[in-house]
Amino acid sequence: MHYFDVASTAPLHPVARQALTAALDEGWADPARLYRSGRQARMLLDAARETVAEALGARPDEISFTASGTQAVQLGMLGALRGNRRRGAHLVHSAVEHSSVLHVAERHGAEGGSVTAVGVDRHGRVAPGAFAAAVRPDTALAVLQSANHEVGTVQPVTETAELLGEVPLLVDAAQSAGRAAVPGGWSLLTASAHKWGGPAGVGVLAVRKGVRWSSPLPADERERGRVPGYVNVPAIVAAAASLRAVRAEAAAEDARLRALVDRIRARVPGSVPEVEVVGDPVHRLPHLVTFSCLYVDGEVLLGELDRAGFAVNSGSSCTSSTLTPSHVLAAMGVLTEGNVRVSLPLGVAEEAVDRFLDVLPGIVAGVRAPLGLDLPAPEATVGTLVVDALGKRCPVPVIELAKRIGDVPVGGTVVVLADDAAARLDIPAWCEMRGHEYLGAEGTRFTVRRTF
Amino acid sequence: MHYFDVASTAPLHPVARQALTAALDEGWADPARLYRSGRQARMLLDAARETVAEALGARPDEISFTASGTQAVQLGMLGALRGNRRRGAHLVHSAVEHSSVLHVAERHGAEGGSVTAVGVDRHGRVAPGAFAAAVRPDTALAVLQSANHEVGTVQPVTETAELLGEVPLLVDAAQSAGRAAVPGGWSLLTASAHKWGGPAGVGVLAVRKGVRWSSPLPADERERGRVPGYVNVPAIVAAAASLRAVRAEAAAEDARLRALVDRIRARVPGSVPEVEVVGDPVHRLPHLVTFSCLYVDGEVLLGELDRAGFAVNSGSSCTSSTLTPSHVLAAMGVLTEGNVRVSLPLGVAEEAVDRFLDVLPGIVAGVRAPLGLDLPAPEATVGTLVVDALGKRCPVPVIELAKRIGDVPVGGTVVVLADDAAARLDIPAWCEMRGHEYLGAEGTRFTVRRTF
Repeated sequence: MHYFDVASTAPLHPVARQALTAALDEGWADPARLYRSGRQARMLLDAARETVAEALGARPDEISFTASGTQAVQLGMLGALRGNRRRGAHLVHSAVEHSSVLHVAERHGAEGGSVTAVGVDRHGRVAPGAFAAAVRPDTALAVLQSANHEVGTVQPVTETAELLGEVPLLVDAAQSAGRAAVPGGWSLLTASAHKWGGPAGVGVLAVRKGVRWSSPLPADERERGRVPGYVNVPAIVAAAASLRAVRAEAAAEDARLRALVDRIRARVPGSVPEVEVVGDPVHRLPHLVTFSCLYVDGEVLLGELDRAGFAVNSGSSCTSSTLTPSHVLAAMGVLTEGNVRVSLPLGVAEEAVDRFLDVLPGIVAGVRAPLGLDLPAPEATVGTLVVDALGKRCPVPVIELAKRIGDVPVGGTVVVLADDAAARLDIPAWCEMRGHEYLGAEGTRFTVRRTF
Repeated sequence: MHYFDVASTAPLHPVARQALTAALDEGWADPARLYRSGRQARMLLDAARETVAEALGARPDEISFTASGTQAVQLGMLGALRGNRRRGAHLVHSAVEHSSVLHVAERHGAEGGSVTAVGVDRHGRVAPGAFAAAVRPDTALAVLQSANHEVGTVQPVTETAELLGEVPLLVDAAQSAGRAAVPGGWSLLTASAHKWGGPAGVGVLAVRKGVRWSSPLPADERERGRVPGYVNVPAIVAAAASLRAVRAEAAAEDARLRALVDRIRARVPGSVPEVEVVGDPVHRLPHLVTFSCLYVDGEVLLGELDRAGFAVNSGSSCTSSTLTPSHVLAAMGVLTEGNVRVSLPLGVAEEAVDRFLDVLPGIVAGVRAPLGLDLPAPEATVGTLVVDALGKRCPVPVIELAKRIGDVPVGGTVVVLADDAAARLDIPAWCEMRGHEYLGAEGTRFTVRRTF
């Protein structure tokens, strides 16, 4: 089984497992107790809080541990709305936030608050100016994700935050925490440990010192009065240990995962007819790509991929029982049917990705076969050629381009996949010299049009 | 270190640890996903739900897993109050509920609801009639614990429930679940896995079919719409496995733990001056006993006991920073200072309890020494003698009684500790024959007054 669904939950990181086992021995007691084992649990909890704070660019006393990312979002949003009631009851969020955010907004609206959902472009990205323009004098809270959970698009959080003035911004960093630096400008920050390879049962709510927050729940003195209930020390210790481990690995894996995703982004349209790769090709998470296949039932496609040994997910569904059209894809104005989200784990084998790319066209064709449709050929065969030079040093990418450009008709395009830094200079320079049209680069994907 | 604080948190049961390790391998994926590993996690979750339902006398579809006992109480109470708004906004609870219940009541009162706290007797027990008398036509919810967390007193839940008519009753079973059968008559039931030897991070909220409940939090489709957030399958699997294991062990250990607690109840007043053992001597949890020492700072006493190798807790404090007088002891009208709660783990060694009883008098005397008080001698030396015949077969308890009764003055009392079933007949019979006064039995404690 190839597990390509880390955006749902990442497999438990080996460091998390070791830390959990150790903390079940050393940190099992109630950290609120005064005897030795209680004090020991408290010290482990304090150390975990410092680790997480450092990783997220916060102070330890700004961090509270929740039971899940959803709980962090709920407590963060409801507490900030309650704490900023004097400003008013207006909430702003992007149209592509996680369902946990939308559900708080629904409840807020049903209870008399007002809500503005800010639209996104075709890549799922908000425009900072448009987002800031939705803010009003009575806006109590704005919410923006660091990166989208369905299509991987990274949001312009820092630029947006700069335009918001004194309106507190909650940044939902569930998809990026542990994989990328947390963007600046947040007043509240939320994350979820099982998304970065920590155990289930741990979320993070950070509230910047000075930000108004008032608990939406009955009093409880634990976690700075922000999260009621017994503190799950062993799981928190494991979450912190794995966050530290995964950050280093993610940095090392970033370029490799980006190249693998670029390969999927380039190859799928070349091998599957009537497919649309969605999400921002450049401002994106390194490991996540989503595409939609026309005329295909997403659930059936997932089932066939599962039988072929690939665990992937379909867009929005938070449960398997609600495969409704994704609100994210709808907001982007892109195809919502036959949706497949691939999110690659750290250390994924290149061969596994290639195998996925090999079997996908046949599986999609199989699902479509009963429909008896007469489909056009995939993009690549009608004028676009993909030249995969990933991992090859210059001048190989340019040599491959020169060799293959004659294979497309005049007016057709060649996409070169190259991750050697020199390609960014060499490919445009080659076009200039040879008179072909350089259409630009998106990540490791360079597009050239044959002009003669 | 002897850990005598299972009422705060029980050490992780070996079965829980094994199940957790296995479920981290087999049940790590998102149970909402359709691929194989997701379906496997779902099956483990379903099986765990059935186990817990069976153990608590509920149907699987009545059980939702929360992140803690406190979260179960909060969601249970707030959801029931919200769901029964048409009845009114009156809440009834006993004065000795856990702080999580009192905090929901405070919030409810602050938001316009009305609250009645029903008093208890000197043993911390509610009177069913008095509790039922607090119910009004606008009562939306009543809350009563199965057993008190500070003094171990078991509440007359079933008798009370019978008097409540259609008013829903939430039973907080945190201290008894896994140790004793759940009392009947509940509409909502709450529990906490780490109290029975399961991992932290798992609570249980059961809502009887047909009981009105409306989520106080924004929508989330997981756990039947009752508990937002990612479901912690490995911890839930471990919680269920340990609940099953612990129930069998608790039944086997019940008599032994009761006798050990009786020993503490009998011996402490005989060896420590100016001490009060609190809580119901008969209607009580098998493993928990609390006593208070006049003129002693509870926190200092806990520190000294910790240095002597005993981890115990002091009454009410949910955190070490709030050693305020216990609301439970205050409601009972008993001494609140110098409070020590001893809660024995399953399998505790008899020698450890005896060692505790040996060192306690010296430690209390040491804490009191700087005060320069002239204290009366302990109870036992002024007319009460404790004869410990626990574990001894009849006729030994009666022989011991006959040998020692001359050691107390006329009018003094002898307490015989005996767990042989025959003692209940033999000791009164011996008194009848010999002309001494039989004062009665409480559990394994038989009291006889010397009359001549």
